[in-house]
Amino acid sequence: MTFNHKHIIGIKDLTPEELTFILDTSISFKEINRRDIKKVPTLRGKTIINLFFEASTRTRTSFEIAGKRLSADTINISASGSSVVKGETLEDTAKNIEAMNPDAIVMRHNASGACEYLAKRLDCAIINAGDGMHEHPSQALLDAYTIREAKGKIEGLTVAIIGDITHSRVVRSNIYCLTKLGAKVRVAGPGTMLPPGIERLGCEAYKNIDDAIKGSDVVMMLRIQRERQGAPLIPSVREYSKFFGLTHARMKLAKEDAIVMHPGPINRGVELPTSIADGPQNVILDQVENGVAVRMALLYLACGGEKLQD
Amino acid sequence: MTFNHKHIIGIKDLTPEELTFILDTSISFKEINRRDIKKVPTLRGKTIINLFFEASTRTRTSFEIAGKRLSADTINISASGSSVVKGETLEDTAKNIEAMNPDAIVMRHNASGACEYLAKRLDCAIINAGDGMHEHPSQALLDAYTIREAKGKIEGLTVAIIGDITHSRVVRSNIYCLTKLGAKVRVAGPGTMLPPGIERLGCEAYKNIDDAIKGSDVVMMLRIQRERQGAPLIPSVREYSKFFGLTHARMKLAKEDAIVMHPGPINRGVELPTSIADGPQNVILDQVENGVAVRMALLYLACGGEKLQD
Amino acid sequence: MTFNHKHIIGIKDLTPEELTFILDTSISFKEINRRDIKKVPTLRGKTIINLFFEASTRTRTSFEIAGKRLSADTINISASGSSVVKGETLEDTAKNIEAMNPDAIVMRHNASGACEYLAKRLDCAIINAGDGMHEHPSQALLDAYTIREAKGKIEGLTVAIIGDITHSRVVRSNIYCLTKLGAKVRVAGPGTMLPPGIERLGCEAYKNIDDAIKGSDVVMMLRIQRERQGAPLIPSVREYSKFFGLTHARMKLAKEDAIVMHPGPINRGVELPTSIADGPQNVILDQVENGVAVRMALLYLACGGEKLQD
Repeated sequence: MTFNHKHIIGIKDLTPEELTFILDTSISFKEINRRDIKKVPTLRGKTIINLFFEASTRTRTSFEIAGKRLSADTINISASGSSVVKGETLEDTAKNIEAMNPDAIVMRHNASGACEYLAKRLDCAIINAGDGMHEHPSQALLDAYTIREAKGKIEGLTVAIIGDITHSRVVRSNIYCLTKLGAKVRVAGPGTMLPPGIERLGCEAYKNIDDAIKGSDVVMMLRIQRERQGAPLIPSVREYSKFFGLTHARMKLAKEDAIVMHPGPINRGVELPTSIADGPQNVILDQVENGVAVRMALLYLACGGEKLQD
Repeated sequence: MTFNHKHIIGIKDLTPEELTFILDTSISFKEINRRDIKKVPTLRGKTIINLFFEASTRTRTSFEIAGKRLSADTINISASGSSVVKGETLEDTAKNIEAMNPDAIVMRHNASGACEYLAKRLDCAIINAGDGMHEHPSQALLDAYTIREAKGKIEGLTVAIIGDITHSRVVRSNIYCLTKLGAKVRVAGPGTMLPPGIERLGCEAYKNIDDAIKGSDVVMMLRIQRERQGAPLIPSVREYSKFFGLTHARMKLAKEDAIVMHPGPINRGVELPTSIADGPQNVILDQVENGVAVRMALLYLACGGEKLQD
Repeated sequence: MTFNHKHIIGIKDLTPEELTFILDTSISFKEINRRDIKKVPTLRGKTIINLFFEASTRTRTSFEIAGKRLSADTINISASGSSVVKGETLEDTAKNIEAMNPDAIVMRHNASGACEYLAKRLDCAIINAGDGMHEHPSQALLDAYTIREAKGKIEGLTVAIIGDITHSRVVRSNIYCLTKLGAKVRVAGPGTMLPPGIERLGCEAYKNIDDAIKGSDVVMMLRIQRERQGAPLIPSVREYSKFFGLTHARMKLAKEDAIVMHPGPINRGVELPTSIADGPQNVILDQVENGVAVRMALLYLACGGEKLQD
């Protein structure tokens, strides 16, 4: 097939066939990551800019490793120490970077829609590495890759996503991705973290974690973002952990071979206990490993591996 | 010709022939930047250190991309997190870096003369990426490149530079560069930003922007450095914009085919309105693109592309 | 010989033969560093992560240059801007990085034993770039390399190490390294900086700098870490300099051909005056240069240059 997108802004824009194509493309890249010589010349002479307006060690590192293993030149720009401080507009910052002829800009920004805004104004490929509460497509793709790898398929599975549904770009991208690939998605969280109308995205909403987990094939625990909300957390961390933390008893409600996922970093003892985080059902570090492979696929596609149009 | 400088400290040190030689050398590098595979093996196995004591996303990024496209290894060192914090002298910091056998050190420093100070004490090539209120040679060279590219020549042109003439290393390097290449340079700014005796550098000084712009081929607006001056800005930003901001009416005073330049980042609505910044006469993003090419030329020359002496 | 260590945690773990093997391996790497093309393809396709929880320009830069000159891909992660801020455990941070399939993690951490802790839990090679008050093996190896280079041997030499013996990981690693290689090590410092029982590490302890220096072949001055101790420095910097600073008179007590070392950054006028720091007996910048070569050897060995076991 031909992959017809220049930018990777959100899962919402992609068809099931395109999502599957990206996952399939990632398979050979995962193999490269496990080799002794983890490098291919695919993107030699290409320039990839990691433009991070929010700090993110793991996503930035994952994209940087992905780019380097494809032999691209990678340049990191973080908001601190950047022209942003000097009051420049986002568009000017991005256009200045584009003028240096990069092949792709991987951007994380705290404003929802920032990547789409730029994609409309720039010729250079934009890859969304997380924008505000909007989307985090590479995370959803690595999650889908991990589920498909562990369960052999995605279609027909039931995936329970537990946590702060309101503020999570991860959950939004995952709902789009998993439902497009034929899974049933349930979300659950405290009333303060469960936005009314979330069902319109194609998922079922639960106020009770037990109901959401019951019979599911995948339990995905979201991170409690203590640092994002200025206001005191309601419920408190202790209450959250009691009512929405994963326990062995609750895992018994899921299918016997259910897997446990978490986008990291884990608050051990809050979202889930160490015995589950490190237990036999967890695939959390597989998610991290697969992240590099999926991002290699995205960079490959964005940098013209498929003679892209759009 | 033979380019006889090991260090690139200031435009003041270079002859018109040497300036033209650098601009000519940059032409083929610009072509490389626009290719699909933007990389040549010219500096393979060379090490370039970007030593930035002042934050500067765009200059650092431009030099980093330039180095990588020449296949050099580039290492970034910023003042925060460096030994500088530990009270080491500049000379010790630099000599320690030199001991690791780099081929060139690209340095930005807040003290005027810092690069020259080091150049006298180090064997390694030093490229000045902006030192205090002294010089910013790569900026002047990319400006000259952009003017020559847009107008076909530099000799005989009239260039008006408007803004904070006192504190700008950009204007100083530009006066040297453009007058050596045969242009007439006019500078204009509020009395508080126009140092007495600036004419001795070879330019004409105006207290009125209209007089400076009249009949000019190039209008170069400088950035108002709100962050540099601790004291309240005199004139205020509003007054500055009214009396020294570029307008369409003022642009009518320039030649019909005059171009508009700005070293960035732009304060939109202060130095110039969006309609001019993005208008048909602006070459602002060309400046950015040409910056990578000019810096490739400087790195190439500094790292021995020409078997340098001095 | 076969070098049987996957991790490089401390000099304490290494035999004299292994230490000599590392030093011998470093010789050819030093030659590479002085070549015009300072690069070999030895670690092409390998990924090295510099994970620095404490800022350290020179050690990080030295490892980064070492990795790049071996053609490895190097990724820098610093504590600021990392998941550490988000309250993740050290083990989780490291396991997440390991999941991205690096070949080696070079780690600096403020906690003594942090590297050993990880080495027990990770499969990936760990190289200690300084952990708390414990060890700094690459520093000790570059010191040993420099001594051997300057004096032709290490066995039989007397090395005086002067300064804050209590808080220095450099001194600890140096005592292990130099005594294993047959040198006699003396340490001296103010009573507040000289831990009781230090002799058990195999050195002689002195409360008087003159006694320590007398007849020694090497005088190694440690940096006064003003920034490490929250409490006021006892003795004061002025007292320290008077009683434990190096002087020309004190140097006369050492052997005539004694060399002067310092791990940097130097507090000029505190540990030693400029006339000695830059004088004919100093090998301080040789230490820095040799640091890159020794680190190339460590990365080479850790990344499988010798088909490592353990």
